[in-house]
Amino acid sequence: MSISVAVAGATGYAGGEVLRLLATHPEVEVKTVTAHSSAGQRLGDLAPHVRRFADMTVQDTTVETLTGHDVVFLALPHGASANLVAGMPEGTLVIDAGADHRLNSAEDWKKFYGTEHAGTWPYGLPEFLFPCGSKQRENLKNTQRIAVPGCYPTASLLALTPGFQAGVLEPQDVVIVAASGTSGAGKTAKTHLLGSETSGGMSPYGVGGMHRHTPEIEQGYSLAAGQPVQVSFTPTLAPMPRGILATATAKVVSGVTEQQLRDVWEAAYGNEQFVHLLPEGQWPQTKMVQGSNHAIMQLAFDPHAHRTIVTCVIDNLVKGTAGGAIQSMNIALGLPENLGLLQEGLSP
Amino acid sequence: MSISVAVAGATGYAGGEVLRLLATHPEVEVKTVTAHSSAGQRLGDLAPHVRRFADMTVQDTTVETLTGHDVVFLALPHGASANLVAGMPEGTLVIDAGADHRLNSAEDWKKFYGTEHAGTWPYGLPEFLFPCGSKQRENLKNTQRIAVPGCYPTASLLALTPGFQAGVLEPQDVVIVAASGTSGAGKTAKTHLLGSETSGGMSPYGVGGMHRHTPEIEQGYSLAAGQPVQVSFTPTLAPMPRGILATATAKVVSGVTEQQLRDVWEAAYGNEQFVHLLPEGQWPQTKMVQGSNHAIMQLAFDPHAHRTIVTCVIDNLVKGTAGGAIQSMNIALGLPENLGLLQEGLSP
Amino acid sequence: MSISVAVAGATGYAGGEVLRLLATHPEVEVKTVTAHSSAGQRLGDLAPHVRRFADMTVQDTTVETLTGHDVVFLALPHGASANLVAGMPEGTLVIDAGADHRLNSAEDWKKFYGTEHAGTWPYGLPEFLFPCGSKQRENLKNTQRIAVPGCYPTASLLALTPGFQAGVLEPQDVVIVAASGTSGAGKTAKTHLLGSETSGGMSPYGVGGMHRHTPEIEQGYSLAAGQPVQVSFTPTLAPMPRGILATATAKVVSGVTEQQLRDVWEAAYGNEQFVHLLPEGQWPQTKMVQGSNHAIMQLAFDPHAHRTIVTCVIDNLVKGTAGGAIQSMNIALGLPENLGLLQEGLSP
Amino acid sequence: MSISVAVAGATGYAGGEVLRLLATHPEVEVKTVTAHSSAGQRLGDLAPHVRRFADMTVQDTTVETLTGHDVVFLALPHGASANLVAGMPEGTLVIDAGADHRLNSAEDWKKFYGTEHAGTWPYGLPEFLFPCGSKQRENLKNTQRIAVPGCYPTASLLALTPGFQAGVLEPQDVVIVAASGTSGAGKTAKTHLLGSETSGGMSPYGVGGMHRHTPEIEQGYSLAAGQPVQVSFTPTLAPMPRGILATATAKVVSGVTEQQLRDVWEAAYGNEQFVHLLPEGQWPQTKMVQGSNHAIMQLAFDPHAHRTIVTCVIDNLVKGTAGGAIQSMNIALGLPENLGLLQEGLSP
Repeated sequence: MSISVAVAGATGYAGGEVLRLLATHPEVEVKTVTAHSSAGQRLGDLAPHVRRFADMTVQDTTVETLTGHDVVFLALPHGASANLVAGMPEGTLVIDAGADHRLNSAEDWKKFYGTEHAGTWPYGLPEFLFPCGSKQRENLKNTQRIAVPGCYPTASLLALTPGFQAGVLEPQDVVIVAASGTSGAGKTAKTHLLGSETSGGMSPYGVGGMHRHTPEIEQGYSLAAGQPVQVSFTPTLAPMPRGILATATAKVVSGVTEQQLRDVWEAAYGNEQFVHLLPEGQWPQTKMVQGSNHAIMQLAFDPHAHRTIVTCVIDNLVKGTAGGAIQSMNIALGLPENLGLLQEGLSP
Repeated sequence: MSISVAVAGATGYAGGEVLRLLATHPEVEVKTVTAHSSAGQRLGDLAPHVRRFADMTVQDTTVETLTGHDVVFLALPHGASANLVAGMPEGTLVIDAGADHRLNSAEDWKKFYGTEHAGTWPYGLPEFLFPCGSKQRENLKNTQRIAVPGCYPTASLLALTPGFQAGVLEPQDVVIVAASGTSGAGKTAKTHLLGSETSGGMSPYGVGGMHRHTPEIEQGYSLAAGQPVQVSFTPTLAPMPRGILATATAKVVSGVTEQQLRDVWEAAYGNEQFVHLLPEGQWPQTKMVQGSNHAIMQLAFDPHAHRTIVTCVIDNLVKGTAGGAIQSMNIALGLPENLGLLQEGLSP
Repeated sequence: MSISVAVAGATGYAGGEVLRLLATHPEVEVKTVTAHSSAGQRLGDLAPHVRRFADMTVQDTTVETLTGHDVVFLALPHGASANLVAGMPEGTLVIDAGADHRLNSAEDWKKFYGTEHAGTWPYGLPEFLFPCGSKQRENLKNTQRIAVPGCYPTASLLALTPGFQAGVLEPQDVVIVAASGTSGAGKTAKTHLLGSETSGGMSPYGVGGMHRHTPEIEQGYSLAAGQPVQVSFTPTLAPMPRGILATATAKVVSGVTEQQLRDVWEAAYGNEQFVHLLPEGQWPQTKMVQGSNHAIMQLAFDPHAHRTIVTCVIDNLVKGTAGGAIQSMNIALGLPENLGLLQEGLSP
Repeated sequence: MSISVAVAGATGYAGGEVLRLLATHPEVEVKTVTAHSSAGQRLGDLAPHVRRFADMTVQDTTVETLTGHDVVFLALPHGASANLVAGMPEGTLVIDAGADHRLNSAEDWKKFYGTEHAGTWPYGLPEFLFPCGSKQRENLKNTQRIAVPGCYPTASLLALTPGFQAGVLEPQDVVIVAASGTSGAGKTAKTHLLGSETSGGMSPYGVGGMHRHTPEIEQGYSLAAGQPVQVSFTPTLAPMPRGILATATAKVVSGVTEQQLRDVWEAAYGNEQFVHLLPEGQWPQTKMVQGSNHAIMQLAFDPHAHRTIVTCVIDNLVKGTAGGAIQSMNIALGLPENLGLLQEGLSP
């Protein structure tokens, strides 16, 4: 079997990461790479780390160039996918790494992104838990549309969803502070993202409930809890190219013990190959998952503040974007879930 | 006037930073530098960045070598200062950059540090606010003993103390997540602190109420609030040599507006030369204060979660240690508060 | 087919990298991991990024634990392999990632390493060129012993060997300045390798002909040139975990043109899958090869100084150590050369 | 005495560094800051680390805004100063941190910069040695025009000039490989300078004699040697915001010993307060001089290659730009040479 693939936005960080991972996928053939301003150039000039596809020519991102593939990955700016998607023929699996199809609420979309809502697609987080105990994986089988979660929501949802699903966390007053590597801010040249600026320092941004990922995180928690969950989310920019460390804290329902908490998380992820609760005493580090599709977390119970603190690490470009996209593609196509995703974390 | 100074623990990061700053202090003469294992060596071999004192010889850390100076800085491991201090003659200003004399509660000390409490000294955070509106600065005048605050507590206390003092923050359920540069972990060679390990990644540590700085933070907040304040504190290690970014969030008392919050912080720090609330719309970055004694913060109000989020940056080795120590020394000796502390942040 | 493998020194950076890569090798089964001080511990506690082998128990490094495997990788300190190797049974492929068996000259060994020479094994650099035009690849087929080249020599030899082999470079006065990531200095805790020290700065070391890699580089160049080649080599430590950038310059034989130089390098590497000369106008970056087994270079001709300057990048732990070792293993066992080595560079 | 100063290009890295240092200069008052695109904004929004001048308003860079100051610093793009300078009144000390007035040869200027030569000004490297033994310092006294050297030339010239001046180095075949922090590439937003790109990796650029700093380095060496000196210069970009490590190697005149070399360098710099040869056995690190005006070097003799290798570190923005500019200003105005330059290196 050989599955033909097109990657739109191949010269950005998300698109480049899809290519990097697909280069090791045994069932996939990358047929077409597209971009906007760099159409006509050699891919090796724009994404020189992906040697395997270096001699491909970048094409323009149009319905025509994308048509005729089994799978189309869209790694485009927010709002750019709607027109393209409308022209995609039946039978094409379209995987949108952008935000356009993540939110259920058209109102939230309009409030945070300012444009018309393009609709809601199946959410590409296979390990997400519903109150009934089933996982989102089931909803991805045979789908032809996948909305890849945001990177912050991926880490945040994996961190606390088991507790909300099991009813051991209070739905009010969740606080999340997350640090992300700079690739999360994209490849567009901006002064505040220059290496001279980001290297050796940290800064917050979008503080105060304004970040676009807040409604996506609340949407997931609320679905898992079966009731509205309210989140204070603060993202910070860390001096590293990749990785997210999310520190997610929530109040524990009275009477629940630390062991009960651990049991809930173990039950949720014990059989997962990409999501892991560390043994007690070991803490996650973003470099454990650098370049890999794993999410690794540790859970602590602070009896003093009566909160649980779950720290969760992912690679924002892998489990947080391209890896999650490919994992979901594998599920949709009935392939083993880990094809193209066997790489371990790059450390040191 | 020339004030004679001895620095104990001169070859560690805190001691080296005291020397770096004192090299530009016009009223001070560094007469003696001491250390433990490196006694007898040339200081230039151990702290080569401080050219001015490169030819001094490191002496052993004993009561004898430290006696006879106007000011003695102690930058020693926790628990090492008690014996030395007992031997210090009257009239010597002793400034302890270690933790030994910070906590009021002997019980907390024993619980978190495991040894006998050495006593409580005036706390070297001049900008700290008491319920009556006076500042800690007053308590440092003419003192002969100063306990330099920890670096995390410095950032955390500066961030939220105005709100507790003014009664606009709820005392329950404060959540702080802070990122520190690696110098906060000291200069002792440990595998997990190797550059290969820390570079390019982030990790949490001491999660779950166990960190030694939690009681120090709660002590300060509670003093300012006039009632017990309870904190969930999570420190993380960031891939940078210096700097702390503290994200401190607390619930806002019902009815308080964002403008009222800003007014409270402005009132607290508007006349301070080292502590600043940024204009609206600008966020702090640790590199704004790299190498300088400034603390810079921004305040956001999240009406959605009904929390205020104050992000505060300091250089952990300057305002968080050596700079705070020298500022307090200046106050104790009746000197202008900014002598030796004129350096601006090193950026980029 | 399943090839059984043991990795000695599995908890160091070189050993950990062998494991990371073997986790994706389809024909290999890692049966045994050994170390010295950490025997008895769970591998996941020591190399947590390699999830696949996390539950293996580290054994002691002895002849007994290593015996009975098809392939044994030795990632041990210099001088530690001789005794182990003596006890290895016939038919075992032993691959030494240490320096012990690289040098032909027992005299040079003694001078630079201070111990008795353990003998010379086939040199694991498949792309190395001999004057006759054959490559070292031929000498690795069916061998039972492989000496993995040093990381600096790998980058240096790949950079200039084509020119020496083709007789277009002068053998005198080669100058190499190379920057290495900190993992090249190993995982032993040392103060000068702390992240606080290495982050944000560069430093030279071992300047003045003293570096142990100089005789290995000269040995290779001299073999390729068929006459003694003399090198001035200066290594520097760069603030990054991985990667080598070697800037290798040599005088060009009079009358040779830039195009002739390019033709020589193209002829040498045009058919190689892991060694590449970039198109004109593009420069190598260490992140192009981060985590991958590629070596990427560019060649410039400076008519002004009549020198060629070849800049070559590798990942010191992959092509410079573990990847080169696995590539050589594949050749020795008659497997496709790229098994386990399909990963592209991790960038950004 | 209070000297009025204007800084043109105050929002770039060089201009910002002039301000950072002048903030501690006791004899100077910064009256005017100018820029191009950001005129009208608050300086604190653009250079927030320099708290002292945060409330100044950026003005447009014109002859009018710059006129009426004792000293004008120009930190502008190449080619932008000529028109401004023409309008400066008599009696104003103009210090150009750009390249326009560094080269003696109008031909070289045209070849490397492509515009008309603006003329040659006294070269702001006080420690530069002439064959007669006098230093450039003498030529800066009472001058009204100063051309600040480039950052690479500063490190390169300080490294080898003593040897050329003393006749102990051969003038042919000098090879320099230098690593620079990213601030050397300026503050203009470019994709290849994003933190995601620069962090964690190294790359060369401008290889093959093309770099604009080559003629400036050769000009200096040739002046010191009294005969033409020819250089192969390769710059590389290192993952750090600041700092240059230059590795400069030259052939030693036959018969000269290592001790004779050390004596020559000691004689040249023994009395300098900003340029230092380290004691034997110690190597320079860029962080020794981070933020300070020092240049620190070590000299090695490689008898094997018959070359001396001098490794020299500076902060590219201090001794390499703004610090050198202020040091030269102090000399021109008859002030103590170290005013505003007392800061020691920021380390760790």
